[in-house]
Amino acid sequence: MKKISKLLVANRGEIALRVLRSAKEMGIATVAIYSEADRNALHVRYADEAVCVGPPASKDSYLRGDKILEVCKELGVDAIHPGYGFLSENAGFARAVREAGLIFVGPSPEAMEIMGDKLSAKQAVKAYNIPLVPGTDEAISDVAAAKVIAHEVGFPILIKASAGGGGKGMRIVNNADEFEEQMQLAINEAVSAFGDGAVFIEKFVTGPRHIEIQVLGDEHGNIVHLFERECSIQRRHQKVIEEAPSSVLTPELRAQMGQCAVDVARACDYTGAGTVEFLLDDKHNFYFLEMNTRLQVEHPVTEQITGLDLVKEQIKVAQGEPLAFSQADLTITGHALELRVYAEDPQNNFLPDIGTLTTYVRPQGPGVRVDDGFEQGMDIPIYYDPMIAKLVTFGADRAEAIARMLRAIEEYQITGIETTLGFGRYVLTHPAFVSGNFDTNFIRDHFTPTTLAPAAPDEATAKIAAALGAMLLSDKKPKAAAATGETGGTDASGWRRNRLGVR
Amino acid sequence: MKKISKLLVANRGEIALRVLRSAKEMGIATVAIYSEADRNALHVRYADEAVCVGPPASKDSYLRGDKILEVCKELGVDAIHPGYGFLSENAGFARAVREAGLIFVGPSPEAMEIMGDKLSAKQAVKAYNIPLVPGTDEAISDVAAAKVIAHEVGFPILIKASAGGGGKGMRIVNNADEFEEQMQLAINEAVSAFGDGAVFIEKFVTGPRHIEIQVLGDEHGNIVHLFERECSIQRRHQKVIEEAPSSVLTPELRAQMGQCAVDVARACDYTGAGTVEFLLDDKHNFYFLEMNTRLQVEHPVTEQITGLDLVKEQIKVAQGEPLAFSQADLTITGHALELRVYAEDPQNNFLPDIGTLTTYVRPQGPGVRVDDGFEQGMDIPIYYDPMIAKLVTFGADRAEAIARMLRAIEEYQITGIETTLGFGRYVLTHPAFVSGNFDTNFIRDHFTPTTLAPAAPDEATAKIAAALGAMLLSDKKPKAAAATGETGGTDASGWRRNRLGVR
Repeated sequence: MKKISKLLVANRGEIALRVLRSAKEMGIATVAIYSEADRNALHVRYADEAVCVGPPASKDSYLRGDKILEVCKELGVDAIHPGYGFLSENAGFARAVREAGLIFVGPSPEAMEIMGDKLSAKQAVKAYNIPLVPGTDEAISDVAAAKVIAHEVGFPILIKASAGGGGKGMRIVNNADEFEEQMQLAINEAVSAFGDGAVFIEKFVTGPRHIEIQVLGDEHGNIVHLFERECSIQRRHQKVIEEAPSSVLTPELRAQMGQCAVDVARACDYTGAGTVEFLLDDKHNFYFLEMNTRLQVEHPVTEQITGLDLVKEQIKVAQGEPLAFSQADLTITGHALELRVYAEDPQNNFLPDIGTLTTYVRPQGPGVRVDDGFEQGMDIPIYYDPMIAKLVTFGADRAEAIARMLRAIEEYQITGIETTLGFGRYVLTHPAFVSGNFDTNFIRDHFTPTTLAPAAPDEATAKIAAALGAMLLSDKKPKAAAATGETGGTDASGWRRNRLGVR
Repeated sequence: MKKISKLLVANRGEIALRVLRSAKEMGIATVAIYSEADRNALHVRYADEAVCVGPPASKDSYLRGDKILEVCKELGVDAIHPGYGFLSENAGFARAVREAGLIFVGPSPEAMEIMGDKLSAKQAVKAYNIPLVPGTDEAISDVAAAKVIAHEVGFPILIKASAGGGGKGMRIVNNADEFEEQMQLAINEAVSAFGDGAVFIEKFVTGPRHIEIQVLGDEHGNIVHLFERECSIQRRHQKVIEEAPSSVLTPELRAQMGQCAVDVARACDYTGAGTVEFLLDDKHNFYFLEMNTRLQVEHPVTEQITGLDLVKEQIKVAQGEPLAFSQADLTITGHALELRVYAEDPQNNFLPDIGTLTTYVRPQGPGVRVDDGFEQGMDIPIYYDPMIAKLVTFGADRAEAIARMLRAIEEYQITGIETTLGFGRYVLTHPAFVSGNFDTNFIRDHFTPTTLAPAAPDEATAKIAAALGAMLLSDKKPKAAAATGETGGTDASGWRRNRLGVR
């Protein structure tokens, strides 16, 4: 057992703050790093020590592994938590950390390398009888050979770049006639994006849901799963709303997928927190997609339904501690939702809307958790992901978690920039979402840029009238009433405005 | 079943906001009332409608049941939630609400009357074999007769006013010599405070812990308990820190006390949420003290360990719905703590420190919930209880809940007034509290007004030096570092200041 006494968090924003909070609760001294654009960031103030590692661009600061290791040496740091993104899945960095005699809070570089490449990942899990989407076993760039395979698999098929991610280099081919042209375009795109033109040919799964399983392994060979997260609500292959548990998993399917995820983790001797992603089709067949060898953005929903602090679990594993629980000890309690709140304008094609958080008041009360890295008056920097916050709600069941999310969206006061809060409300009140009957095409099927604009003229008129009424009462105070109770009118507070949807 | 469509919350501050949030999640329209001192309060802005019911003094506003009923009539309200305090345990008001054809979200006036008087409460529970503290069955004012009873019970004994509460009219008598004088003083005090000189004589319980059981009953005869809250950390008989579960209850004792609490509730046909208070002695004997026929201040700790929203449960019961669960469905998950944050100066005998919240930034992150009714820039009014907030933390176990509370206290930024945050930290880090080995005398035994002052000169010097260092860096930005990582110094943010304890 190697006790961590000083931890450097090689990240920024909400996840840096998130990790710092857990470290503080464990009595571990903390070091933050920051770029010149993040001088005022909350994570900088929160840590015991903070060091600027370079100019705003990530490649000059948060991706400078060499500088980060120098900071560690200088400040007597003994462990690095990489958060997500940046260096978190960089096996070379993990190896350099280890070679510098430090603890990398994450899996081994070997596990990262195996799972970091789709081909080696598939090869590694072969021995475990893991269901894979029918298609090529190996990456391919021969168009004629690929077409033969495509015919075997059956159209529609999906072409995916071997080195891809986040939807880049992905193409759906509906019939044989389009194949050659689409394959060539996919290869070109893969070469340009990743410097590697190899692609996979896969069966295109219909009615697909993105279900991922959280796993946790220690250095003593114990691996458990912490159930699933449903992440089917995606926009351009980026998750928007995540939840746990999923509305479609039966206990049997959950156990089956959980065991599969544990096997995937075992295939690479995984340690720490990782996520095994599956595609679930409309007939409840599931297929292994890939393993993410880091803490996920959406880890809080798992924390809420299991009562575990995943960052603390990561740190304990990194210290060599065995897991304090077995699979049988783990149960799901309640239901949790996460909405990613972005500085983007949903009515303007989700273009980033960078600026100053003129007003920033978080929702409060039972069943609400906000993970963010901002406070009122701060700027959202243009250099990084425009996520402002992760709004997490939890309740006894899904209906309560949704009701709390809607209440929290209404309470959230953000002015100065456009956000995706209204978009979140739209999704959360949509019958398809409420029923649980949706797939990864939800936004394609149910959302257009005009969706959030007032739909019917009558409704629009009513909203404008209400908005005018609110604005006329520019004083926030409801009027004082005479002896027997004159009623105060609608006021112009942020809450009220949010509810009227006129912000 | 009578669906509530519009609810008036006859209260102020955090509990009004708390109730409004649950009503909103249930889709119920809401009405707030407020006194002239609370025009800018958050509960006023949060409700759909808000009505001023009178001048600042409670007796002229929040206690004016007649005005509140007029407001209900005027605005088409069909139910009233009384919160805690004010009219919440006033049977006459509950009866008037019922007679006006409205729903009172609480127990029947009859149950309130039975449990509102210690004597009738004891008589009501007689049939259920509830353990009571040995002593007089009936209130007494005959000093000579009382002395005979005192001898039978054995010294030390406690004299308690029949109509008392909150420690008023309570006296401990250690031996027979003091008895007559103390009894006469107690009678005088009871007459002056409550207009009723009758007192009880009781065995004085040694090493007492205050353990209360949350119960919930519906109109169909179902009553369950939601486990215990440990409320032994009290100052002048007012709770300071509450937690659930208690560190001393075994599963057997929990089941026994839970059943006892259900029996007490059954003795008065209790409906809605109520609390049965017990005294637990150092030999694990427990004695019924009284039943509080309202939602308690400390209800959030029960919500956190059961996953239930108690306000929603109250509303559902008031609508005539049967409980959706039985005793066997209920389990404890994790551990929760509540710290009452008061606008009081612990170093100045806890005198109220009323003023403006110049800085007010709530703690965030996993396992933290803040129930309050204030925001930055608001004044704490002098007319009401000086509680600013209830800081609630929860974790997988007690150690994690404590670590999170300490982390949350450090994050909490309040300037402009003195608060009990530092006092809370003192209690939470005290070995007696951490070990779980404490009783209701904790503060008497372990706290003096100088406890929070810097103890050792060396420590004080170090703190002053650190404070000066922090002040010198008046710019909140840590310094930018040169290429290889110059470290930013201690900064002057609230967080840093809180940690150094120099606020």
